[in-house]
Formats: sequence, structure tokens, C-alpha cells
Amino acid sequence: MRFHLGLKAALAVGAFCAQCTAQTYQRLGSCPTLGCILPPDQADFLPGQYFDIRVEVHAPLNGSEVIPGYTNPDTNFTLTIARDGQTPKAAASFFNVSEPTLETWNFTWYEDLFAKAANTPSQVRVAAKAYRHVALYQPGNYIATLNYRNGSATYANWTVRDIAPTRKAKNVVMFIGDGMTTNMITAARLIAHHQINGKYQSKLAMDSFPVLGHQMTHSLDSYITDSANSATALYTGHKSTVNALGVYADSSKTSFDDPKVETIAEIFYRLYKGGVGIVSTAFIADATPAALTAHTRDRGQYGAVIDSFLNGITNYTWTNWSGPDVLFGGGAEQFYPGKGSFQGKDYYAEFANKNYTVVQNNTILQKSSNSSKTLGIFSVSNMAKWLDRNVYPDNLKIAKTAPDGSNGTATDQPGLKEMTIKALEILHTRHQQDGFFLMSEAASIDKQMHTLDYDRALGELLELDDTIKATLSYLESIGELNDTLVLVTADHGHGFDVMGNVDTKFLNAQKDDRDKRGAVGTYQNSGLSQYLVANRSAPVGSDQNLIYNAGVNFPSNWDPRYTLYQGLTANPDHRENYQVHKTGPRLPALNITGFDNDDYYVNYVDAVTGFIVNGTLPVSADQGVHSLTDVPVFTRGPCQEQFGGVYGNIDIFFGLAGCLGLSRTSHP
Amino acid sequence: MRFHLGLKAALAVGAFCAQCTAQTYQRLGSCPTLGCILPPDQADFLPGQYFDIRVEVHAPLNGSEVIPGYTNPDTNFTLTIARDGQTPKAAASFFNVSEPTLETWNFTWYEDLFAKAANTPSQVRVAAKAYRHVALYQPGNYIATLNYRNGSATYANWTVRDIAPTRKAKNVVMFIGDGMTTNMITAARLIAHHQINGKYQSKLAMDSFPVLGHQMTHSLDSYITDSANSATALYTGHKSTVNALGVYADSSKTSFDDPKVETIAEIFYRLYKGGVGIVSTAFIADATPAALTAHTRDRGQYGAVIDSFLNGITNYTWTNWSGPDVLFGGGAEQFYPGKGSFQGKDYYAEFANKNYTVVQNNTILQKSSNSSKTLGIFSVSNMAKWLDRNVYPDNLKIAKTAPDGSNGTATDQPGLKEMTIKALEILHTRHQQDGFFLMSEAASIDKQMHTLDYDRALGELLELDDTIKATLSYLESIGELNDTLVLVTADHGHGFDVMGNVDTKFLNAQKDDRDKRGAVGTYQNSGLSQYLVANRSAPVGSDQNLIYNAGVNFPSNWDPRYTLYQGLTANPDHRENYQVHKTGPRLPALNITGFDNDDYYVNYVDAVTGFIVNGTLPVSADQGVHSLTDVPVFTRGPCQEQFGGVYGNIDIFFGLAGCLGLSRTSHP
Repeated sequence: MRFHLGLKAALAVGAFCAQCTAQTYQRLGSCPTLGCILPPDQADFLPGQYFDIRVEVHAPLNGSEVIPGYTNPDTNFTLTIARDGQTPKAAASFFNVSEPTLETWNFTWYEDLFAKAANTPSQVRVAAKAYRHVALYQPGNYIATLNYRNGSATYANWTVRDIAPTRKAKNVVMFIGDGMTTNMITAARLIAHHQINGKYQSKLAMDSFPVLGHQMTHSLDSYITDSANSATALYTGHKSTVNALGVYADSSKTSFDDPKVETIAEIFYRLYKGGVGIVSTAFIADATPAALTAHTRDRGQYGAVIDSFLNGITNYTWTNWSGPDVLFGGGAEQFYPGKGSFQGKDYYAEFANKNYTVVQNNTILQKSSNSSKTLGIFSVSNMAKWLDRNVYPDNLKIAKTAPDGSNGTATDQPGLKEMTIKALEILHTRHQQDGFFLMSEAASIDKQMHTLDYDRALGELLELDDTIKATLSYLESIGELNDTLVLVTADHGHGFDVMGNVDTKFLNAQKDDRDKRGAVGTYQNSGLSQYLVANRSAPVGSDQNLIYNAGVNFPSNWDPRYTLYQGLTANPDHRENYQVHKTGPRLPALNITGFDNDDYYVNYVDAVTGFIVNGTLPVSADQGVHSLTDVPVFTRGPCQEQFGGVYGNIDIFFGLAGCLGLSRTSHP
Repeated sequence: MRFHLGLKAALAVGAFCAQCTAQTYQRLGSCPTLGCILPPDQADFLPGQYFDIRVEVHAPLNGSEVIPGYTNPDTNFTLTIARDGQTPKAAASFFNVSEPTLETWNFTWYEDLFAKAANTPSQVRVAAKAYRHVALYQPGNYIATLNYRNGSATYANWTVRDIAPTRKAKNVVMFIGDGMTTNMITAARLIAHHQINGKYQSKLAMDSFPVLGHQMTHSLDSYITDSANSATALYTGHKSTVNALGVYADSSKTSFDDPKVETIAEIFYRLYKGGVGIVSTAFIADATPAALTAHTRDRGQYGAVIDSFLNGITNYTWTNWSGPDVLFGGGAEQFYPGKGSFQGKDYYAEFANKNYTVVQNNTILQKSSNSSKTLGIFSVSNMAKWLDRNVYPDNLKIAKTAPDGSNGTATDQPGLKEMTIKALEILHTRHQQDGFFLMSEAASIDKQMHTLDYDRALGELLELDDTIKATLSYLESIGELNDTLVLVTADHGHGFDVMGNVDTKFLNAQKDDRDKRGAVGTYQNSGLSQYLVANRSAPVGSDQNLIYNAGVNFPSNWDPRYTLYQGLTANPDHRENYQVHKTGPRLPALNITGFDNDDYYVNYVDAVTGFIVNGTLPVSADQGVHSLTDVPVFTRGPCQEQFGGVYGNIDIFFGLAGCLGLSRTSHP
């Protein structure tokens, strides 16, 4: 699936595997042997958290793993579970569920890039079972053992963490800056906060949080994660696989039978009927919001994701769910009836039928009642960017993103701050007793880094920070600040940094690409940021002369002569002139050889005064990719002391769930 | 100054301004007006810390700042100082020093790249004074006022921080990973620590420190710092200028009269006669070690730096200094008599004459007494890298870096761990009562990132972590762990990250550059790190089959088929094949058009199987450059609670100095 220009470009889902054309070399990432247990070895559980178990036995028919004579997988495999020091029991008996039906299927994979190039897939036959909707209540270590093929065994060591069921926070507000790194935070501070002789005169709101941590984002089966995989870790405490939402990925054909793990939203609702808010600047079926309620291996099942927001999981017994209090974002194409919506249904109507107030622009949003459940869908696809809404508003008149499906424009969109504060008002009104969990995502930090649109990405980050500041202020105004754990983090990074400045006047005056590079200034020649120096000769309100109220920290000039020399560590072919892209979000690379050929070159209409930079990514890539780096975690409020130092992304789930009192050491 | 191959390349000083060919646009960075006060506005001081004051009055003769008729600077300027709410006093009277002599000079600068290209410098005439060796004792706010030219005034608001003189730590060990970022730490963990299903089975030593912070490295007059500038901030609490060591840079011709600020080592020695150790894998005159005792605007004054280690500052009255207890590193060319050494003297003899034990290899180092002051210089230039010492030791037989100046090789070099533990043994032996301050620098994280030699850089980072682990263990063994504040940080970053993997076999099998890029795997195709999977068919001890003792965390295989897809955000022209450089440190770019022409292209003998990547840096750059990102601070021990959250690099000085009890609220 590839998109190219205008609206379609804006729809491009950054992390989606469309550009993953290089080597695949794992039969099933979670299963290096021929017997597979999911949840796999090293999985951790919250006491009382529901999950499914999938076991698979593989028989490779060809390729490097063939066992001569073993072409049909053993169907007499057994799974046992034992708590530390106790006698193993058959899984069905241990969990007191019926023995599941045997399932069989086949799948194929490529062992490496040579096999892929030669189109010689390896085939595998599978025998499998699934034990569904089980839980472990007693803290401690467990071992799951899969016996198969006459003495072969796969083991999974599981740990149920010893987390007290005591609730310490009434509310949790979790901000996710999608793709946000420390490097980006540093750059955003530079362009929006004044310094004098090197000393900042103000800092970001997140800078002032008392506790700082780093989370490691390594996923189950790859060291680079996507947002589905990492959101699953953050919300469930279980690391998973690229593209997977709230499940471990199995090898079966359907993407709706993979073994599920219960999410923080589901547990909070099950135990407390607490309020849940989901806010994102992405299309709302996108991975980071989706992973709170969806359970599918394929994040691309957008329609089903929307149905899960409203109805929960319906094809298997699972946690009851009656929809969040608040669901705000973009992605109208999954709501108005048509090929984008689940079963072609009108999901505006589906939500309205369940007593949701449905709003489609900021004006109505701000006037709507705080006592109703509310669905706010403000555009087709991802919502407009802060830079376009605030500095280049004419760009909102270009894309036909009206949320009502009318093919009109969506010029009255709220920002993350407006959506988040309204969400808090509703959650506070509806859940004064039982508290709330709000996830608010600045999605387009990631999306704009993907397309090398650094200015727009940093604008989104500053909007996130402005939202955090407004949130603290609002929580204080309603007397909830001390009872609310506020956590700001990311789900993964992009390899971004700032290395100096660029004299764009000099660059634009040079003809030769090598000469243009001479406009770059490093070390002492980086000088000072010019983004807060308004151009007094520019017209009032222009992008070179912006005026904000005191304490509002955004650049006063997005188009200074001396801009940031900034970039990514992984690029498609593109051109750089280091100037703001005034006519709308950037599209750095283009397939100039044919529409479906995945052969990307420099977009000849992008950054035309710049010099050409050849990429290092596969030529099938039209945008940047995620990176490895640990990402920061800023925390304040009850339980803040648990979030310092360096830990895994799953520890965020356990910290939040523990603070909300979500563990249960016996069947409720 | 440019170097090209072999030893000379190894000598290249990363951050030096040789490659800063782009715009200069500040007359004097700390002085945007025509009257200059150093320390400038916003400077912070430790109570009782000595410093010099420089005031300058500028009269531009041409360029954009000319004032018609004002061609000679006002020589009747006055400087006053006032504590908050008190009457200003003339500076000489306030500090009870003699009124300084008036000085005058001229200097020139370029206003921008166009002026530089046209060779049209702007000229400035200067009148100046310096008030030397003064201090402020009472915490609070002060204002320095420079009145000049009939009513013009420049103000500097100074703050003496309210820091109690109580000593809380007996010892401080400060580790500096030069250029080390969170991203690099994440990558080093990936290649040296096992994970199972995404969960690390061990972590880095620094990961386990209880308190994490981020420091902002923005310098006085540019947002990108070099290591001199940042070391000055870390050791003195004063932000400075690129290339400046322990001074604010003024505009005078000599680099030995700039206004000084007292360093943590100097204060600790002055107040407690405490032990001081200085350890680095760089040539020891390099910026990070140098800034503990040197006071010069020009970090390139290597000989004078060495003299300052031994004799302190001799051209002005300054803190008495009799040399550190330990000085270990490279840079023999500043010690044996010759053009590299200060005044051509033999500094081995100079140190020996002051009762230093002088050692030149690891064998002798390990046997030498712990009761003597010790100078250990183990190679010409920067010391050998961990990867070469441990995996490719034959590379040590190539460079003629014998520390005795014999033009032999230096094959018996200690690593950072050996130097650091020996330093601790000496410091502990000599300073059981008064405690010690040790700075230990992993210098070549930075140096190898500069040359895009990611493997060597990560090897250095892992050696740093191994050194930290050994340090904690040693401190515990001598009963000093609980009395020692251990702090691990960096001085700046490089824009580095890991984005996936590379199938080097596939890459090497492709002929076309665009096809080679198809070997890159991202997201799920990054798979798992192969650096801990030894190649069982490789010879024992080869770089594909390395065996370490349990708990020693380095890669088992530096040359796996699937390597890291990694890179920097700022590059010269170069080629990438993503394989380890087996024959010695990398040299990515080369001047193929002439020796002094600063016109760099891809080095045709580097990474020859790879594809070409054109850089974004000026073509005069042969290596990468520093970046903006906040860098991490890991702390454990007394006062650890002061180092959480986000703060400036100068706050590290104030935290360390406060913990060591270095403030004095009255003249001693």
C-alpha cells in the first residue's frame, strides 16, 4: 500500500510494514524452536490480568530447518503449567477451562533476502491450540511446558509480579509523544525558549517534572519497534511484534484469532468502571489509540479497530467494554459509511445509538456538554498540524478532509490542547468518584519526522508541551492535581538531531550542490537560535513576525535566515534546503518511474533550492524509519518515584497499573 | 590544520574549529552590544570561587555596526558592582584590588558568509581592562554595570548561589563519556547484553544508577558546544565559548590573558589539599582533561596545557597548584622534548623533578607504587581503542606511537579500566583522610563517532561501562562506596542512532549502489542483534568467536552477517558497508584534490564494498560534528538526589562542588 500526493500522502502510516522490503529471517519471531508458546518465555503478568495462550507445533517442509521424515506436525502435543516448586498440571485443568480444539494450517516465509529475491519461500505445517481468557493470580514464577514430537520441549518462564492491589492514584494522564526523543525535545526547547548567554530563561513543561526515566523499546522479536508493538507493551505489559495490537502474533492466517492480553483501559473499566479517554491527532484507528481496546495482529484493520472502541472484542469471550467516555481524533473515513468503515456501517450512527454526543469541529466541541460520552472526529485521516493550523492556515483549505464525508475541507479543527482539556472536563464531570485514565497522543511528531518535515514535527512537540502545561493547570483548578499521576513518554524514536545552523540566504545564492553545503555552520558558527527573533520588517502576523501571549512558547519566526541544520540518520533520497515547508506537509521522495514500483527518488518539487542527499534506506522507502534509542519518561504525581532510572517499556504498564490498584490476587 | 593518514589522522582533534568554515556572525559572542562584561549577564558563581573580570568597549570601524564619528573606543569607561539593593561601587573598590591598566587592541571579524567569501572583514578597535583574582562570597544577586560612551551601559546580572559549605561526600568520581548520548548507550547495550523475547537479561552498569538526569549543553554564544567549552561548564559552573578552557574568551590577540574561572580541581585542592586524578584515553592535553587546570581561550595550546597540569597558572596570580596525584593518558608528543612540548622542554623530566613516578606502559603501571604521584603517558596522540587492543591487536603494531619518542610502537597500553582502577588505588592510598576527585574520560567515544567508526565508538562506550562496574566494585572493596559520589555523564552529543540491520552478505553480493541499499532491514526485519551470537565455525579467538568471562559484557562477534544499520545525522561524503573496520580506525573522507584544499570526497579505500553517501556538511569537513541533544547524567552516592530531572551543564559543577563542601561565604 503506497500513497503519493496530497491527501493520500497525508494518510501514509509511518511505521507500516509496506517499506520493509529487506530481509525476513525469522519463521515466527517469538518461536526460534519448532514448538511455540505465547505468551513466550520471560513474559510478565499483572496479578489477575486476562490473557489467551497459543501453542503451535511447526513442521518445516523445506528450507534450513527441515527434519527429514517429519512433514506433519505432532498433533499430540501437550501443554502443562506449574507454579514454582509445584507439580505441573495440564493447562486446561490448571486454568479450569475446556481442552481447546486442535487447529491446523500452513504458512510460508523467506529465510533471507537471497531466498526472497529468488522467490523460494520456506513452507511450514502447523498444529495448534488456544486456551482463552485465563489469568494468573498468585505472584511468583511459573513455567509453561510444551511437549511435542517424542521428547522435544519448549519452555516459557512466566512471572506474575508482586504488585499490591492498593490504589494510590485516582487518575492517570498518559501523554505519548509518538516517536519523540530527547534529541527532539532539546531542539524544540531551542526554538521556543529564550536563553541568555547559554542559560534558558524558561523551560519546557516536561523539563520541570521531578522524575526522569528512560524506557527501552526493544520488542519481542526485533530491536526496532513500530507504534502498535510498543503501544501494546505500554498498555498491557507484554512486548509484542510489529503491527500487533494487544496480542501476541501467531502464524495463523486470520489476524483476529491471535492470543490477546488485557489492556490497562480494559482492566480499569472492569474493576472500577473508571472513566477512559482516548485522544490523538492521528486518525483515531491508528496504532497508539487503537491498542487500548483492539486485539489484532494487523494494525491495518482500521474498521475493526473502530468497532472495538465501541463494542470491545466480540468474537471471543473477553472483558466487557461499553466504549470510552471520550474518543477524539481524525480518521473520519472509518466512521462515515463506506469502504473504510467496518462492514460498511455508519459509525457516527453506531456511536450516537449508544448515547454518544458526536461532534465534528472545534466550535461545536467547545460548546458540547461535559456530562455525555463524546465522539469527536475532526478530519479524514490525520488531523491538521499545529504549524498549518496556526501559521499557515490556508493549507487547511487545500485537503478535502471534512469529517462528514462531504469532500469539503476541515478548517475548524481543534488542537491537541483543546481536545485534551475538553476530554479532562468530560472525564472529571462523569467520574468524580471513580477517577479516570486519559491517553493523549501527539501523533504527528512521528508522522512529520517520517517525512523529514522537522519544523512540523517540532511544532507538534511544542503543542504537546503546551498541552501538558494546560493540563497541569486545569488539574490544579479542579483540585485533582495531587491525585493524578501525569506521565509523559514516547513509544520509540527517530534518529534525529540538530548539528548547527544554515545560512539559507547563502545557500540559496549558490548554484552548485557542493557550494550549497558551505552554508552549514557548526560549533561556534551555529551561533544562537533565530526562531525567537521576530523580523520587524515583516508584516504583522506573518511567519516571520508572530506574536504570542506571555508564557506561550512557540517560535516567533519560522522562516529566519539562519535555520537549524538538522536531520535524520535514515533517509530516502531527498533534497535539503533547511527551510520551513510553507505550502503544507513535506513529501521528500517520489516514485518517478511508475506508480506501484516502489523505486523512490528525490521529489523534484520539494526543497527545490536545496542540494540532493542520497538516502541509505532501501530505494523502496519514501520516508524515514524508527530508531533504537531509549526514550524519556517524565513523571509527576502519586507513584512518581517508580519511574526514575532505566527500565523496559513494559514497566510503564506495571507502574501505572500498580498505581491505579489494578492487580487482583484472586478471582474477583 | 588538517591531517590525513595513519598517525596524523589519529591525531585529528574532533571538535577543533578547523572545519568551521561556514558563517561567523558574532563580533564577540558574549557581547551583542558595544560594551562587554565577562563574566556576562546570567553568570552564576559558587560562593568564594575565584574569577577574573574583563571589560571591553568596542568601536567598529566598518560594517553594519558602525557609529558615525565613533572610531576610537571610549577609554573613560567605568565598571561598578552592586549587591542587590545596595549602592554600586567602583569595581576596584568593591573587590579591594588596584585599578587595572587600560589596554587597547584591534580585531577583525566577518559579518556573514558573503563577507567572508568577498574577504571584507569588519574591523573593531577595543579599549579594555581586567580585574583579576576576585571572588564573591555572599549568596545573592549582583549587578555589574559598564558605563561608556556618554550614557551607554551594559549590565550583567550575576548570581552567587546559596550553597552551604557542608561537605557531604568524601570523594567524587566523575566519568565523562565524551560525545556520549542516550542513543549510543542504547546501541551499546544492544550489542553486549543478552535479551530474551525483548527483555534484557542484564543491563549496563550505568543503567542501574538510581538517579537519571539530562543536562542541556547550550554554550554561552552558540547552541553547539565543543569539549573545551562544555568541560569548562562542567568544572567551573561557567558556560563559555568553543575552544575555551577555564576562561571566558575575550577579543584580545593573546590566548593567555582571557578572564579565568576557578575549577573544581583547583578549589578542592585549595581548600582541602584533596587528591586529584585525571585520566583520559585521549592525548592528555586534550580539552576534557585540560579544562581541570588550564586557562586559555585556545585549546590548541597543548604544551601550555601540560605545563598547567604540573605548575598551574604562572603568568598571573592564581590558585596555588602543585600537580595532580594522577595524570594518565596519551599525548607523549607534549612530553618528550621537541616542538610539541612547552618551550621544547622534557616534561617527563619536569614531572620526575617534582617527585612523580613516570610510567610508559601498562606492565610498569600495574607494578608501580600506589604511594607516589604518578604520570602515565602510554602513547603518542590518542591511545589505542578498545577494539584494537582486544580484538585486532595487530593494529597496535602499525602506528609509531611509542610514548618515549623512539618512533617505535606502543603495544602495551592500558585501557580506561586499568588506568582508572590504578588511579583509584593511588588516590585512596594518598588521600584516605582528605578524599579525592577523579575525572575519568572515555575520550574516543567522541573521536570514533567523528570518523563514523561506530563499532570502535561503541567499543569505547562498553569499556567505559566496564570501568564503571569495576570502579563500584573497587570502591566497595575499600569501604569507600557510600562516601563517594559517582557521576557518569557526557559533554555533548553526536546525532547517532540505530535504525535496523544490514545483511552484509546480500549487500556485498550486489553491484549497484541502489541495490546495495536493499540489504537494509527495518522494523520487524531488524530482527535480533547478532553481536552476541558467536560463529562456531570461526577460529577460536577470532573476531567472530570471542569468549569472555561471565559478566563481561562485550560482543562475541564484531563481524556478524547481520550488522547494525546505524549512522549519524551529519556526515562528510563517505561510503557505507556497515561492517567493522578491521585494519584500524576509520578514515571516511579524503582530500583527493590537493593537500591543503579542504575539499573532501569519499575515501576510496574505506568501506569499498559499500555504497556512496554524499554528506550534508561543508565539503571542507572530513568528519562528523557535535550535536545539540541533551545528554544523560547517571548518579549514585551522596547528593544523588540533586541530579534528577533536566538542568544545565553548569548545574553539575554546582552539585558536585556543593557535595564536596567547596563553597565559602567569607574570605578564607
